[in-house]
Amino acid sequence: MTTDKVDSEEAIIAAFWAPLAEGFPGAFGLKDDCAALSPPPGCDLVLTTDSIVAGVHVLPDETPDAIAWKALAVNVSDLIAKGASPLAYLMSLGLPEAPEREWLAAFANGLARAQAAFGCRLIGGDTDRVPGPLSVSITALGTIPRGSFVQRATARAGDLVYVSGTIGDAALGLALRRDPSLGARWKLDAAGRKQLESRFRMPSPPVALAGVVRTFARAAMDISDGLVKDFDRLCRTAHVGGRLEAARVPLSAPASTVVGNKCVALEALLTGGEDYEVLAVVAPERAAEFERAAAASGHSVTRIGAIDDVVESVSVLDPQGIAMAFATSGWDHFRPRAAAD
Amino acid sequence: MTTDKVDSEEAIIAAFWAPLAEGFPGAFGLKDDCAALSPPPGCDLVLTTDSIVAGVHVLPDETPDAIAWKALAVNVSDLIAKGASPLAYLMSLGLPEAPEREWLAAFANGLARAQAAFGCRLIGGDTDRVPGPLSVSITALGTIPRGSFVQRATARAGDLVYVSGTIGDAALGLALRRDPSLGARWKLDAAGRKQLESRFRMPSPPVALAGVVRTFARAAMDISDGLVKDFDRLCRTAHVGGRLEAARVPLSAPASTVVGNKCVALEALLTGGEDYEVLAVVAPERAAEFERAAAASGHSVTRIGAIDDVVESVSVLDPQGIAMAFATSGWDHFRPRAAAD
Repeated sequence: MTTDKVDSEEAIIAAFWAPLAEGFPGAFGLKDDCAALSPPPGCDLVLTTDSIVAGVHVLPDETPDAIAWKALAVNVSDLIAKGASPLAYLMSLGLPEAPEREWLAAFANGLARAQAAFGCRLIGGDTDRVPGPLSVSITALGTIPRGSFVQRATARAGDLVYVSGTIGDAALGLALRRDPSLGARWKLDAAGRKQLESRFRMPSPPVALAGVVRTFARAAMDISDGLVKDFDRLCRTAHVGGRLEAARVPLSAPASTVVGNKCVALEALLTGGEDYEVLAVVAPERAAEFERAAAASGHSVTRIGAIDDVVESVSVLDPQGIAMAFATSGWDHFRPRAAAD
Repeated sequence: MTTDKVDSEEAIIAAFWAPLAEGFPGAFGLKDDCAALSPPPGCDLVLTTDSIVAGVHVLPDETPDAIAWKALAVNVSDLIAKGASPLAYLMSLGLPEAPEREWLAAFANGLARAQAAFGCRLIGGDTDRVPGPLSVSITALGTIPRGSFVQRATARAGDLVYVSGTIGDAALGLALRRDPSLGARWKLDAAGRKQLESRFRMPSPPVALAGVVRTFARAAMDISDGLVKDFDRLCRTAHVGGRLEAARVPLSAPASTVVGNKCVALEALLTGGEDYEVLAVVAPERAAEFERAAAASGHSVTRIGAIDDVVESVSVLDPQGIAMAFATSGWDHFRPRAAAD
């Protein structure tokens, strides 16, 4: 196979990034130094930034299209949980060596699929060669009707606690990627293994839920570092306490199989991280409407607990109503991650 | 000396980053996952992203406060050249090891000084440990009256070409940092050496010039990869040609000394990069006003050439009016930089 290296930043922009900016006039085809953005009338902007580093947030052998997808998905996840609709993103890419055309094409294809799925466009970037692993830093922007940003700190005693989708799949998917022999031990079929791995490799935050969250949620955040840890953060920020009922936490079919077989403890799923689902707190009188609107958006939500006024005390109850103990509540992004081992 | 490591992202945010967000309500004290921004009425937002990697864009032994300053400055430079007033920034920081408290305090201090000088605040971020060199990715946002973004592509034949400040200091400063013995060979006193080094280490884009640029410039960009290369880009994007007169290019006193002593060729300064000054194109009938307004802003601007209609042909004339030859027109950010050697 011949290598086909691309060795100028301008050539990379023109061939691979500029097509991702099409249809956004203020991106100027990525030929200017900055993007211009006229905020839609009556809207606020919502901004977030998150990085993906090879060997830290993705396995060292991950494919370029999955890395690109994940880098955008983890940022969009933050926007959705605040009730914002994704609009645009900027990307700072650090490449460890002059990349091959094929690699860049696959990476750009992953971004193209992700931005189409999430409804946003590339409006600026920076591509550098770096003496370290591949890194992708994305800053994502969303829009929201003025004043409707859903904070983390606004939960109140008596509110109900919901999660979107299912919890723990990504943690199992990571374990499967690192040790494929687990699939057989866990008694999973090929489809089940693939489903779990895909949840780790290419998370899909519930985009259509953004409008439901901003209309009905009193407080919300995305679940990235583990359900227990993120619920604890939400409660601490709001100076409230809360309870989760472990038996209510929604599991996918393959995750249920793995837990049912006693191959993996439920605790590991509740603290596993990388779920990229929404953790939402809803006033009881709005709960029925919230559930109906979520169903109409095509995303499931499940009530898993409640906020109470025992300040900053968070518990997770087992089916007998007894508080479960956790060795760790979840990931600290700052500590080296499991994926790096 | 005892080490004093900080090993959780939340502890780092609370102690070092949250103070940088004070006074910006939509940053929520960096306790939420996203920032909210209500764009000022009648304004567009201008966005850019640029990264600094230790050993690539700064020398491996650079101090944390200077790294932080430079990471923000290179982004602000892009905003200024588009006529935008800096408003806010998000930072994604990759740290190669658990940092010491002292290091973080110095880094945060560099950011604090830079954001005070440039008039913007931290509104979001991400701190990770990475198996590579220190990296700082910043996305900066500025505001501009609606529709007044100054593009790169809008230069016209007959327009005059200006630069702010002086050119080539950073290239000399980098050389001095890498080989301190050059200072004596170049016959520079301590103040001159320090001035040049400081221009490389802690560039100061001309913030007060933003309003002048947006009012009077027909096209503009910042000079980051070398005057000749960036002027060539500006002309190519606009499908025009242009001439620079080398003798008109403004040099600082120490740079004049170095060139006057024939220690370094003028060509090296015109292609050296990292000037972080504004390259502005102004219609002839607005030139006098532009010069007066720039002077009133406290930043010098110098006319160094003109745009002509010889399509996409750019020349630099020596004092005899003869076109100068360049081995390289400037940096490609994508190729490993001199600082990494």
